[in-house]
Amino acid sequence: MEATDVWTLASTALVLIMTPGLALFYGGLVRVRSVVNMMLFSVSAMGVVGVLWILIGYSMSYFSDGESGFAGSPFKDFGLVNTDPASFIGVGFGAVFAMITTALISGAIADRVGLGSWVLFSGVWATLVYFPVAAWVWGGGWIMQLGTWLGTPDVIDLAGGTAIHINAGAAALALAIVVGKRRNFAQGSHKPHSIPLVTIGAALLWFGWIGFNAGLATEIGEAGLILVNTLAAPAAGIIGWIITDVARGKKPGVVGASSGAIAGLVAITPAAANLSPLWALLLGLIAGAACAFAIELKYRLGYDDSLDVVGLHLVAGVIGTLYLGFFAFKDGLFTGGNGGLLLVQAISVVGVATYSFVVSMIIARVVKALTGLRVPREVEEAGIDTFAHGEEAYDYLPDVTPARQPEPVGGAR
Amino acid sequence: MEATDVWTLASTALVLIMTPGLALFYGGLVRVRSVVNMMLFSVSAMGVVGVLWILIGYSMSYFSDGESGFAGSPFKDFGLVNTDPASFIGVGFGAVFAMITTALISGAIADRVGLGSWVLFSGVWATLVYFPVAAWVWGGGWIMQLGTWLGTPDVIDLAGGTAIHINAGAAALALAIVVGKRRNFAQGSHKPHSIPLVTIGAALLWFGWIGFNAGLATEIGEAGLILVNTLAAPAAGIIGWIITDVARGKKPGVVGASSGAIAGLVAITPAAANLSPLWALLLGLIAGAACAFAIELKYRLGYDDSLDVVGLHLVAGVIGTLYLGFFAFKDGLFTGGNGGLLLVQAISVVGVATYSFVVSMIIARVVKALTGLRVPREVEEAGIDTFAHGEEAYDYLPDVTPARQPEPVGGAR
Amino acid sequence: MEATDVWTLASTALVLIMTPGLALFYGGLVRVRSVVNMMLFSVSAMGVVGVLWILIGYSMSYFSDGESGFAGSPFKDFGLVNTDPASFIGVGFGAVFAMITTALISGAIADRVGLGSWVLFSGVWATLVYFPVAAWVWGGGWIMQLGTWLGTPDVIDLAGGTAIHINAGAAALALAIVVGKRRNFAQGSHKPHSIPLVTIGAALLWFGWIGFNAGLATEIGEAGLILVNTLAAPAAGIIGWIITDVARGKKPGVVGASSGAIAGLVAITPAAANLSPLWALLLGLIAGAACAFAIELKYRLGYDDSLDVVGLHLVAGVIGTLYLGFFAFKDGLFTGGNGGLLLVQAISVVGVATYSFVVSMIIARVVKALTGLRVPREVEEAGIDTFAHGEEAYDYLPDVTPARQPEPVGGAR
Repeated sequence: MEATDVWTLASTALVLIMTPGLALFYGGLVRVRSVVNMMLFSVSAMGVVGVLWILIGYSMSYFSDGESGFAGSPFKDFGLVNTDPASFIGVGFGAVFAMITTALISGAIADRVGLGSWVLFSGVWATLVYFPVAAWVWGGGWIMQLGTWLGTPDVIDLAGGTAIHINAGAAALALAIVVGKRRNFAQGSHKPHSIPLVTIGAALLWFGWIGFNAGLATEIGEAGLILVNTLAAPAAGIIGWIITDVARGKKPGVVGASSGAIAGLVAITPAAANLSPLWALLLGLIAGAACAFAIELKYRLGYDDSLDVVGLHLVAGVIGTLYLGFFAFKDGLFTGGNGGLLLVQAISVVGVATYSFVVSMIIARVVKALTGLRVPREVEEAGIDTFAHGEEAYDYLPDVTPARQPEPVGGAR
Repeated sequence: MEATDVWTLASTALVLIMTPGLALFYGGLVRVRSVVNMMLFSVSAMGVVGVLWILIGYSMSYFSDGESGFAGSPFKDFGLVNTDPASFIGVGFGAVFAMITTALISGAIADRVGLGSWVLFSGVWATLVYFPVAAWVWGGGWIMQLGTWLGTPDVIDLAGGTAIHINAGAAALALAIVVGKRRNFAQGSHKPHSIPLVTIGAALLWFGWIGFNAGLATEIGEAGLILVNTLAAPAAGIIGWIITDVARGKKPGVVGASSGAIAGLVAITPAAANLSPLWALLLGLIAGAACAFAIELKYRLGYDDSLDVVGLHLVAGVIGTLYLGFFAFKDGLFTGGNGGLLLVQAISVVGVATYSFVVSMIIARVVKALTGLRVPREVEEAGIDTFAHGEEAYDYLPDVTPARQPEPVGGAR
Repeated sequence: MEATDVWTLASTALVLIMTPGLALFYGGLVRVRSVVNMMLFSVSAMGVVGVLWILIGYSMSYFSDGESGFAGSPFKDFGLVNTDPASFIGVGFGAVFAMITTALISGAIADRVGLGSWVLFSGVWATLVYFPVAAWVWGGGWIMQLGTWLGTPDVIDLAGGTAIHINAGAAALALAIVVGKRRNFAQGSHKPHSIPLVTIGAALLWFGWIGFNAGLATEIGEAGLILVNTLAAPAAGIIGWIITDVARGKKPGVVGASSGAIAGLVAITPAAANLSPLWALLLGLIAGAACAFAIELKYRLGYDDSLDVVGLHLVAGVIGTLYLGFFAFKDGLFTGGNGGLLLVQAISVVGVATYSFVVSMIIARVVKALTGLRVPREVEEAGIDTFAHGEEAYDYLPDVTPARQPEPVGGAR
């Protein structure tokens, strides 16, 4: 093994733990009666998408010589039977990307969707949306060829501003719309049930993100730049979010600080190899501040993106991807004096967002027709964990039955 | 340092965190009044076995030229005084294996054993069972030589189907029998007190398992294959367990999904370098399904393996080790048309399981004679954490003394 | 990239997760009404110190040719604008050291300081204390030159016995004195609110410490020695602490075991490359036992170092740094028969401790003059999380208002 193979191997472990990290982050953000359901969505995605990736996903995620079109053929590497083991480290690295991307979507549908519906949605989504989009962005597809076609610089998306975050964010929006709002959806009605759990999850996410962004770097300077930027942007994101909250009269908290770090991480994901650290700091600051506002849009626009997949991943993904059009080394509008990169960045944003939104909505509607998608009203009101999963997140709370009775239906417990 | 040294170094960190991961997994699975006790068993094993490994364990775990017999001499590398520092990375990698293997056993004796008894058992067990068995399997001992003796292919045990999982599982069975059942032992009487804690623990286990299985790989193809299989088998294990539960009318939950992942990981441990990914998927599916049934055996057979060390580690360890006899590259019964490998795999299974079970039972009986092994009835009933450790897992629950009173003795709180 | 670059890269991820690990360790140790505040101090340090490191910290932390004096110039690498990307991996590795060191201090001031005051203190402290001291110890400053000046061996501080632990510990003492005691400060009055959270935090700390100590090792023997010692000392520290507690009639618990591991880790931090494993075991044992006593000093001396930054980091940092003077390879008093190393080790201990204590006290007093430093009495009594952060750590406890009423003011809940 070469040193860079070791790094990709280690990075795969780093990215692997991001999905349980997400399970914990999401699990901490929901109410106590939906923790098991929420975490199970991420864990089941590790199962379903992991298996699918090995069967057909890797094969679909790139175009081999002579292939073109919608996605790579699922047959050439079916089950990795004919795949060169020398590429297996890359296969593993791709697998954990597919897992986390799919799991990200589940934050939009807290408290109200059954596991079967989610498994169905997530498996089809990975197949029809994630695998093809990965092929477009990294596997030789149309987004990689945009620059050549238009005579501009090539689209820059290091680790998935479009393929991961915009993709998952647009799907989350579609799914949230189809699923519909929780019955008691309103600002402030769903406080996180456990801040320490949110902190653990966010910590594992940032930790894993080092491998996420830098896992394929081969040159020392590139790896170092990505590393520094993957520290700079979330650090600035924390500050950006907290300053924004304080400036608006909100009290600074851990959920905001964690969300700020994640906003910075999302924004730097496409850009970490193409910005100097000062520009990465600015990007993180902007993303943190912008997402602090963006997560409130759902209350105005009326979609119940429960845990802000849209407000964090779609918004910061768009910010990071377009920011490159202005500030990327050499080719940005302000750094190179030419709008060509900005144009192709914008096209890739719109292309991925539109495709993911439309196809996700179709998949969601089909799943809804098949399974109903949403659990019955009484299950949602009584708590999905007990009724759908037979598990309660915590089984040690003192029994104070009388005190529980006067709770509002489906309300904060 | 070479790249492969860096990988073993990183893998040691990965495997190191598996033991606290196990502490959290086990800690989440027990009732709230035993969490400290349960976690302390893993943490103390890190102390006791860590120190023993450096003093005598590494030395005992391999046969140098001319050595043979029960185990390596504890004197040749005593305290690493005469050990070449160039082998220290390997010494560290071995240390964390010894820690986790010993800690695994503790899941069998939740709620009812004092720390002193456990420390005594675990230290003696590591010395008389783990260090020798590691020498048999990886250090030039009889299991490594079986193939040569019998004219068959060599036993395959990449990362410890026998030396780790069957070994710990058989010891857990012996210890559970000697310790005896909890007073309120019955199906459903011990629901996990914290599902998020179980999730955190399982996440750290899977994460660390990448290093566990692949930490000594040196070729890119081998490392990649191990990596892919260490993703494939647990992914399929999740699905296998959930399908089994749903098919039996049980609700799918996080404990099952996590256990399925672990079953898949245990099963692939001996096999990750010798199966193609499709066969790894099948193995994970089988292990997940089989263990979903196996964990219920204890209620029929009447041993209180509290957290299913037998049902997960012994059973999936046996499955994975024997599965190689059928499907290993070239030499499996179905892949090579010859039963030789299956024979030696079976011999190693029986050899390690028998030795571990018998010696563990002797150690347990001796410890029982010395310390009583089990805490007094009133401590078990009142909660071992408060009485034996002076700590309660959570000190923030509202005080509702009246509501606590009518609890059944030692029952679910 | 070379293999050693990959290792430093991976180590940066390992050290990165130590700061959230510390947030969880500290968060678990405080009462439930201060968890958010406590964790936010670590998270905000990741933001503030991360940004400062990129702007001026890296530049200040070493002396380039011709530079001398108090610290490196903040201008030569301002914002990394003129910095060679080939050094960026090292910049990242330095960033995560700066984060954790600053965050360590916050354990001294649980329950009673507002975020704004902490952000101000931590930013100034990093600038005036950490960056310069790092330059003294590792960047060519006076501590590195002591040996040459005095004709003794050079000071040994591998990963920060002085620069990290004594530095943070002395600052914590100063800050605790200026902030003053909590109103209900007394032995036993502040039991940890969550032992599992403490365990998670300690686990992440030990895990990350592998990278912390070994991240810059380049030779296989050196890396292996550091690895083994970073396992040996905390393993022995666990045993040292538990034996000490049991010998004093205290019940053994997870907080003690975790603290013992950390004491061993702190003590081995300066020494891991310069002691043989047997001496590392002894050092860990001593540190574990000594710190078990040292954490009670605060009750006798009357400073409220709430979470024992002094008792763990200052004390074990001093022990490890001076221990080298006796037992370091070749140059220790007992190993080389000459007191020269002991002399310079002692000078560096006194130098760093004095500087950090004095300057930290000045900064703390200035912040106190500006912000008051301490939250109003009613906020401290009612719980800082709700009042200052608008978040409660757990929002799922049954509402038993009547049972809460008779609590002592500010007391254990």
